[in-house]
Amino acid sequence: MRKLSRCVAAVAILACLCAIGGAQAIAQTDPLPSWNDGASKQAIIDFVTRVTKEGGPDFVAPEDRIATFDNDGTLWVEQPMYTQFVFAIDEVKKQANQHPEWKDKEPFKSVLAGDMKAVAAMGEKGMLEIVAATHTGMTTADFSETVDKWLAVAKHPRFKVLYTDLAYQPMLELLAYLRANDFNVFIVSGGGVEFMRGFTRKTYGVPPWQVVGSSGVTQYGMWDASPVLLKQPKVLFVDDGPGKPEGINHFIGAQPIFAFGNSDGDKEMLEWTAACKRLCFMGLVHHTDAVREYAYDRNSDVGRLDKALDEALAKGWTVVDMKNDWKTIFAWEKPSP
Amino acid sequence: MRKLSRCVAAVAILACLCAIGGAQAIAQTDPLPSWNDGASKQAIIDFVTRVTKEGGPDFVAPEDRIATFDNDGTLWVEQPMYTQFVFAIDEVKKQANQHPEWKDKEPFKSVLAGDMKAVAAMGEKGMLEIVAATHTGMTTADFSETVDKWLAVAKHPRFKVLYTDLAYQPMLELLAYLRANDFNVFIVSGGGVEFMRGFTRKTYGVPPWQVVGSSGVTQYGMWDASPVLLKQPKVLFVDDGPGKPEGINHFIGAQPIFAFGNSDGDKEMLEWTAACKRLCFMGLVHHTDAVREYAYDRNSDVGRLDKALDEALAKGWTVVDMKNDWKTIFAWEKPSP
Repeated sequence: MRKLSRCVAAVAILACLCAIGGAQAIAQTDPLPSWNDGASKQAIIDFVTRVTKEGGPDFVAPEDRIATFDNDGTLWVEQPMYTQFVFAIDEVKKQANQHPEWKDKEPFKSVLAGDMKAVAAMGEKGMLEIVAATHTGMTTADFSETVDKWLAVAKHPRFKVLYTDLAYQPMLELLAYLRANDFNVFIVSGGGVEFMRGFTRKTYGVPPWQVVGSSGVTQYGMWDASPVLLKQPKVLFVDDGPGKPEGINHFIGAQPIFAFGNSDGDKEMLEWTAACKRLCFMGLVHHTDAVREYAYDRNSDVGRLDKALDEALAKGWTVVDMKNDWKTIFAWEKPSP
Repeated sequence: MRKLSRCVAAVAILACLCAIGGAQAIAQTDPLPSWNDGASKQAIIDFVTRVTKEGGPDFVAPEDRIATFDNDGTLWVEQPMYTQFVFAIDEVKKQANQHPEWKDKEPFKSVLAGDMKAVAAMGEKGMLEIVAATHTGMTTADFSETVDKWLAVAKHPRFKVLYTDLAYQPMLELLAYLRANDFNVFIVSGGGVEFMRGFTRKTYGVPPWQVVGSSGVTQYGMWDASPVLLKQPKVLFVDDGPGKPEGINHFIGAQPIFAFGNSDGDKEMLEWTAACKRLCFMGLVHHTDAVREYAYDRNSDVGRLDKALDEALAKGWTVVDMKNDWKTIFAWEKPSP
């Protein structure tokens, strides 16, 4: 063992020397290059610097560095329609041949006629029927495969790229920056947990067990002498609004010190984070860029930001102004001059 | 940056040389010193060696190395009564002054009279009433604090040590061995998730979000202008039997390749793991040591092992014979000669 110990010591010493020598070079690397210099970027960097400063008054141990992010509108585009709903609509069209009765039955009739206004007018009830028809009655494995195949080909109507290419580059940099500072990064979204788990690892580097989302009941059983999990048409848990802190408690079991959202559905998650009893960070993405992405807030049906915006402004939470704070929005986009 | 790059290269080269020079020394360190040499220990080491061998036919990428462990009877003692139920009983006694009506009301009357036979005779209904009275109606923060305080002082009636000192040393070594080989280690237990999260990090090194367990509904609300989560007397999810693969899907979102249990409540988790479509490991702890711990299986009310034992024997799963396979059971115990 002596030889090994000496080697370990030599590596450790050399690594230390390198750290000292390299510190200046590392410090000069901007961890958030797609963010314009300004209050939002500065607030993020200040927060991370303070909670990671050992011996400082705001130091938080790595195990307690919990960061939670909403998904739709916070990490990727949610306009003109939530991606998961686009998937459901596409599935209805794909499966229409096997369901001749849908021709005469709402909400499927309107979906198949391409009348999305009529679908929207049916409200939540119609939406839930479409989701139930396309998200339940199959095994979890079959559902995952269907999601994988759809994500590999479906393209956004305006940007003409895969949906996973609509992740916001500044937020990808933020996720990487937090992880590099030993944060445990979670997604906490109203979206279906099994839909999201189809892309969160590849797109965001977030493993499936760090994704909190709305969930249906599954039932364990045998199919052809093999065990399967069958997706039932029964909601177990809705991870939106007050459901977000409830979901954080249920899945994560620890209170965040850092949270980012973009709509009123994130208000309670941000309030719960603000109650963290130490230094904590609350952020909102405000969609202000109709040219490069979309501009919407108080009057939007998708991702309405109204009460949470008032609260953020009143309490001094960080409100990211997409148009001015983000140098680049998408990795494939040319930076603005 | 040149200086930094040269340093990194030097560290890398030295680390490689060390790895070559130290390989022999490392190979000689037994990762499972509390396990006697034998079929169980060999099966574990063979499995880990095969799935971690890059380029080998059974290699599994680190992100897919999911290991799930039952808790009661698999990682710590569950006799003569599940620890969480001992906690509930102690809480009933502690709160009796505030509930004068309990004197005349079952199951509390029998609990307060110390008549555990009568409590047991009331079956699941009595047990659920005791759990509801002691686990709901408070905030999640208050409940955690109560659990912390209890775990810090309550002692096991036979071993006279803290319950957290009744974790099995061979299993602690196994958890560490798997983590050292880049496994993602989870607890999947019928126990209450919030009770377990009170000790899993300290005792097992498992963070709260890697604990899957039975869960109640919580409700977000305001209390004195501060947000709280109130524990409701309503079951959300029971993580036992078929609930274990369902819980694995719900919380983890990935299929295990390694699972360990000790009772019939683990049968479906082990079957689900056995369906992993690559090399997978299924293990059972068989309690065979009445002298150092307990001996029980097919006829025990607590931790009954009957159908799962038959299945394990028929399918060649690893059955740990506690008496013969474990050199040391508890860290504080002197090893047997």
